Parts: sequence; structure tokens; C-alpha cells
Amino acid sequence: MKVNLDRLKNNIINVGEIGKDEDGGITRLAFSDEYNQAVDLVVKLFTEQNLQVTVDGVGNVIGRREGKSDLPSIMIGSHIDTVKNGGLLDGNLGVMAGLECVSILNDNNIITNHPIEIIGFNAEEGSEMGGTFGSRVMAGKQDLNDPSLPEKLSTYDLTVDDLRKSVRDMKKVKAFLEIHIEQGGFLDNNNLSIGVVSGIAGITRYEIRVKGEANHAGTTPMDLRKDALTAAAKLISRIEEISKRIGRPFVSTIGQLTIKPGSVNVIPGEVVMILEMRDMDKNKINSAIEEIQTYSNILNGFQVEFKLLIEKPSVETNEKITEEIKNVCIENDIRYEVMASGAGHDAKEMAAKVPIGMIFIPSKDGKSHCPQEFSTWEDIETGTQVMFNTLLKVDELL
Amino acid sequence: MKVNLDRLKNNIINVGEIGKDEDGGITRLAFSDEYNQAVDLVVKLFTEQNLQVTVDGVGNVIGRREGKSDLPSIMIGSHIDTVKNGGLLDGNLGVMAGLECVSILNDNNIITNHPIEIIGFNAEEGSEMGGTFGSRVMAGKQDLNDPSLPEKLSTYDLTVDDLRKSVRDMKKVKAFLEIHIEQGGFLDNNNLSIGVVSGIAGITRYEIRVKGEANHAGTTPMDLRKDALTAAAKLISRIEEISKRIGRPFVSTIGQLTIKPGSVNVIPGEVVMILEMRDMDKNKINSAIEEIQTYSNILNGFQVEFKLLIEKPSVETNEKITEEIKNVCIENDIRYEVMASGAGHDAKEMAAKVPIGMIFIPSKDGKSHCPQEFSTWEDIETGTQVMFNTLLKVDELL
Repeated sequence: MKVNLDRLKNNIINVGEIGKDEDGGITRLAFSDEYNQAVDLVVKLFTEQNLQVTVDGVGNVIGRREGKSDLPSIMIGSHIDTVKNGGLLDGNLGVMAGLECVSILNDNNIITNHPIEIIGFNAEEGSEMGGTFGSRVMAGKQDLNDPSLPEKLSTYDLTVDDLRKSVRDMKKVKAFLEIHIEQGGFLDNNNLSIGVVSGIAGITRYEIRVKGEANHAGTTPMDLRKDALTAAAKLISRIEEISKRIGRPFVSTIGQLTIKPGSVNVIPGEVVMILEMRDMDKNKINSAIEEIQTYSNILNGFQVEFKLLIEKPSVETNEKITEEIKNVCIENDIRYEVMASGAGHDAKEMAAKVPIGMIFIPSKDGKSHCPQEFSTWEDIETGTQVMFNTLLKVDELL
Repeated sequence: MKVNLDRLKNNIINVGEIGKDEDGGITRLAFSDEYNQAVDLVVKLFTEQNLQVTVDGVGNVIGRREGKSDLPSIMIGSHIDTVKNGGLLDGNLGVMAGLECVSILNDNNIITNHPIEIIGFNAEEGSEMGGTFGSRVMAGKQDLNDPSLPEKLSTYDLTVDDLRKSVRDMKKVKAFLEIHIEQGGFLDNNNLSIGVVSGIAGITRYEIRVKGEANHAGTTPMDLRKDALTAAAKLISRIEEISKRIGRPFVSTIGQLTIKPGSVNVIPGEVVMILEMRDMDKNKINSAIEEIQTYSNILNGFQVEFKLLIEKPSVETNEKITEEIKNVCIENDIRYEVMASGAGHDAKEMAAKVPIGMIFIPSKDGKSHCPQEFSTWEDIETGTQVMFNTLLKVDELL
């Protein structure tokens, strides 16, 4: 039983037509007109495959195919929305690959043991509601008593009641599967076809404040300066060095940096930067920050302050499902590697309640969230086939 | 013939009362009410010493004491205005020390060969008109045909004609002398009483643009990144290293730095920073930038662009006057060193037309442009005495 690549290709491209920008990028923001157009198309495509379709209170599209008996359902899904000027595949691939899986079942008149639900989530990308909103609500992970919620929701003409009605009873869900582009260059760079996702990395962010002494840029000799920027530069280099040494999947990034007072003719008195670290293992993040703090203590004459901003734990995929994905790759001679996801996904929200499995396919040059986002149709076909075979195994074995 | 420290101290403190902030700092901005109050006081103090006082069209106060014959005058001066929340001595010292010099002449009934003029300049610190405005106008260095001038002047109720009337015939000026606080920590740190200023450093500024590749902070492995900030950090460290190696008076400062796109979860794709270099010797600045560019070429995978923003030449003090200041120090066993000024001063504007001489006294901990700006009364007395003795030598010898 094989993927029908022409059908899959058409579906992906048709969804990608909605929100197309002049430069070839795609803007299909959560809750936008373009998003709603895409929902209409997805409903139509789901219906054509005889799925029982509902759109829930927050704009998630759900297409259900009954199984042999009243078991909990296996969900396959990803998101329909995109970032501003994003690419063709981020989210779209996962929803259309899910649809292709049930289409193959239809082609072959197969009834699975479990019901299958294909989900197109809303608002996985950033919006007023934060990321992975659709899946967060469905999994019951959105705090409905948050006092700031009603005002935020009103931006999108939503009420707390819309959310309440969209929460699913996760006891009636057996597993959640997602296929997604990697959005990094690891698979492409190593000539691999499939990433078997072991988990989604935790994220820790610190504000680092380097305190020197602002002074006149003309009159203060080099040896009498306490230049917060030159001290910060040493710290940045050391952080990069430490991060490279820890090794994959650990990454660290300083994406924001501000100099005070910020005048061309004044020696920087203070530098404030945000350090983000990601890894599956909290201990690695902790030991990295310890080493960074130790180094900052020997930056003579500079006070360096660390303030923890956020600490999101990592999430592990289900071991049995991961094993099945690996088996599918091995049986079919597909080059794969087990890897962590550095980015968050809808599957992360579902993982709190049900076993999850995730499949990555290569992103050319690691590009994503931009018009240049690209994966070959061959990799898309392989990934979807791996998803289909995994679905059958999960249906039988779990 | 000695400085009357009580008189000098009183005068400095009385001027310092005008514009006093609650925290002890002083705000006497150019063209402000506080500035005008200070002008009134300076006019009064000048008049009490029998000077012939005028206030020119841009608010410079000039007090003239005739000499034995109609020779060109020797000017002594500095500025009356301050930065926002500045200190007691920046500018004020130079004007009141000049007044003290003619007061000593009065005390001793001495008539010099040359007329002597004590100048309190307006707007040496930044204003809408740019720095050293009062002295720039007096020296005839302000372009009166600049089409943007009338509108800028209207901010201060001034006309181009006010400027035209304030331009002095510099052929009728023999020399310009200025005493000023160092505003850096060199003299204080080396336990010196006097800095004999050899010149005012030139200023060159470059915009440096480091181009990497913006990418997802979670999904891009450390070894596949082109992080513009970690590249910029290496460049900043190298620039500091090169600058220290070149040695005094060379200084370099990066006071502004911007990261693009500047999101916590995006690897910086571009860093733009402004590098300022100061030295007496243009060749040293040029060879520094060459070395910096050579290093930037080996920053693998990063394009680094350099754009020259400004290039202000250095200015030398008059060799004979400098020699006389040194002689005064040697004769009186005063610990001095010949040094360049890293900051601009009114003397720099006058240097284009007449020989200049400049004397620095120590700034405690190098602090200036802040309420903590401080020099001991002993150093103020010594500096003013050196100025007086130099004045006599210049009057006799030049």
C-alpha cells in the first residue's frame, strides 16, 4: 500500500495557494481570512475522503474515520496556519500527509482497529494567544481561568466558552502522530531521509546583565576602561565555545542585546542580553549556565547578573512509537537518525496527555519560516509512507 | 605673584550655584535661562576686575584688559555652559582661572605688553548647533551660508547676522590659552599634577556591518550556524586587543551596536556597530582599521562591510607655548606629562587661526559630565598658577 504522490502533491500545493505573497512566500496567519479560506478547503478535502468533519470552537479542523470498534482514536495532525511570509510545508505537510494516510486506507478498503482522526490545528505559530494555541486548547492545557484571557480572545471574536467546548477528552485518544519538516539543517547536511524524533527540547532563557562603567570615549585610556561591551564580547565567545563542546542537540543563542547608554562617543556602561539554551536534558542546560557563571566571575572588574526568565521542560516522545518508526525505516532501507526537535510543535502540547510520535523530513539548507523553505517531493513521499506504515503498526501493536 | 585661592574658589563655586540640580549635579545648558544667569554673574565678576566687558551675538562673554601697546591680544578662555547634570569644573574652571590671572595682574599693578581677553564661551557642549559653537563662530569657522542654519538658529532666537557680528578678526589675536580638567583618568592614575597638552586627537568613525545568516534558534545546530553576533564578538575582542597594543593616546570605542532581527529565538543575521577611533596620528588610525579589516576577512563565512562615517583631523598645540608650559612646571617642581587630549575643546576651534596652548589638571577617577566630577583645590591652584606664569612668558617671549 503506497502513497499516491500526485494526490498528496496536489493537496499540499492547493493549500499553499491560499495566502500566497508576491515573492512566493505564504502568509496564512491564525484567525485571518486566509486561514478561514484554508479551513474551507481542508474541510472539502477531508469530506471528499468520506471523513466526518467538524471545526471546533477555536478553528481546529477534525476529520474522523471510524474503526472496527469503539476504541480510543489515533490522531495524526499538524497546523494549517503559517508565519508571516513563511513557506509551503511548515504545518501544511503534516495535515495533508495525515489526509493521505486515510486516503490510502480508503484506496485499499481497510478498516483499522481504532478510529483515526486527522487534525488541522489553528494558531501553532505565534499570535496574541501564544504559540500552539489550537493544540493547547484541545489537549486541555490552556488555563481557562486566566483573567487576561477574555480580553485576548476578544481580538479574535472568541469567548472562553468557545475554548471550553473545544477541549477534548484525551482518554478517548490513543496516540498523536505528527510529521513535520525539520526546520534545521541536520538531516540535509548528513544526507538522511528521516529524523525519528526522540523528544522536543526544553527551553531556558536568562537575562544576562554585564555592568561596567560608562565613560568618555575620548579621554579614558584603554587600560583604565571598564567597557561592558568588550567584556560581553568575551562572554559571548565563551558561551559559543561551551555550547559547541556540549554537542548536539544542545544549542544556545543570544538573539537580543542592548548597550547602555548607546552613544557613539560613550564607553558602554552596561550590556543586557538574552541567552536562550535548548536541550532534552535539563542537567546539560544547568551545567552550561554554571560554567558560564563561573567564567563571568573571572571577568575582572565586571559585575555580571543572571536572571532566569523562562524554563520550559523538554518533552519525550513515546518509546514504543519511536521504536516502530525506526523499524519502518529499517525494513524499508531508509536512512534515518534519532534526533531531538529544537523547535516546539503541536505534538508537544498533546504529549502531556497521550503518547506521541514524530517524524521529521529534511529541510533544504535548514531553511524554514521563509519563502525558501523547501523539501524534495521524494522526501515528502518517503516521510508520508513512513507515517502510513507507522500508523498501521500503532493500530495493531499499541 | 601667587594665585589667590580663596577668591578663585569663591568664583568657581558661585558660578556652580547656577543650574544646580537636586542631586548636586549642574545643568546649565547653552542658551538656557541658567546660562543667561551665569552670563550675568560672569559679566559682574569681570567688571569687578575692571575688565571691559562685552557679550557677543551668540552669548560669548569677553572681558578685555588693555596692554602697554596696541598689539594683538592674548586670549584665555573656556566655556560657561554644561551638559545635563554635569559637574562643577568642566568649562567653569577655565573661565574663572582666566579671570584669576588678570586679577593677579591687578593685585600687582602689572601692565602686560599685549592686551589680555578672558572668554567665557557659549555652547561648547552639544546643542542643536553642534559642539564648540561659541568658539567656532568667534574663530570664523562656522559656515554662515549653510542653508540649514537659519532654522536651527531660530530655536535660540538667533539670526545669521548675530553670528556674523560675533566673528572676530583673528589677526588681532596672538594666542589662545585654555585650562581644563582632563576628563580622563590618566593624570590621576599616574599621580601627576599637570598635563601639557600636545594636541587634540582626531576622530574617525566607521560603521561595521557583520553579515551572517538569520535562522531558527532551536533547530539550527551549533556547527551549522552563521551567527553574526558571535562573529561580531570575536571582532570586538580583536579590536580591543589591537587598540591596547597601539598604546596611548590611541583609543577605540564601540558605543552603538544593533542586532537584526533582534528576537530571542532567532539567530542574529546581521550586526551593525559604530567604531570610533581617536589618535593624534592619522597613520595609526589607518593602520588599525587595516588590521581590523584583515582580521574580518578571516572570519569564515561572514561578510564584513566597513563604511567611513566621519574623519575629523587632529589639531596640534603650538610648540613654543607647550615648551613654555613645560618650563613653568620644571621651574616649580610640578609633576607633569605631555599628553594628547582625547576630547574636543574650544581651543581646537581657535587652533585653526591662532597658536594655542592647553593645560590639563587631574580629574579624580577620570570622572566628568556627571555630578561626581572632581579635582582637588590644590590641583586647581597649581593649574591656575601654571597658567598665570605661562601667560607672562607668552606675553614676553612670543
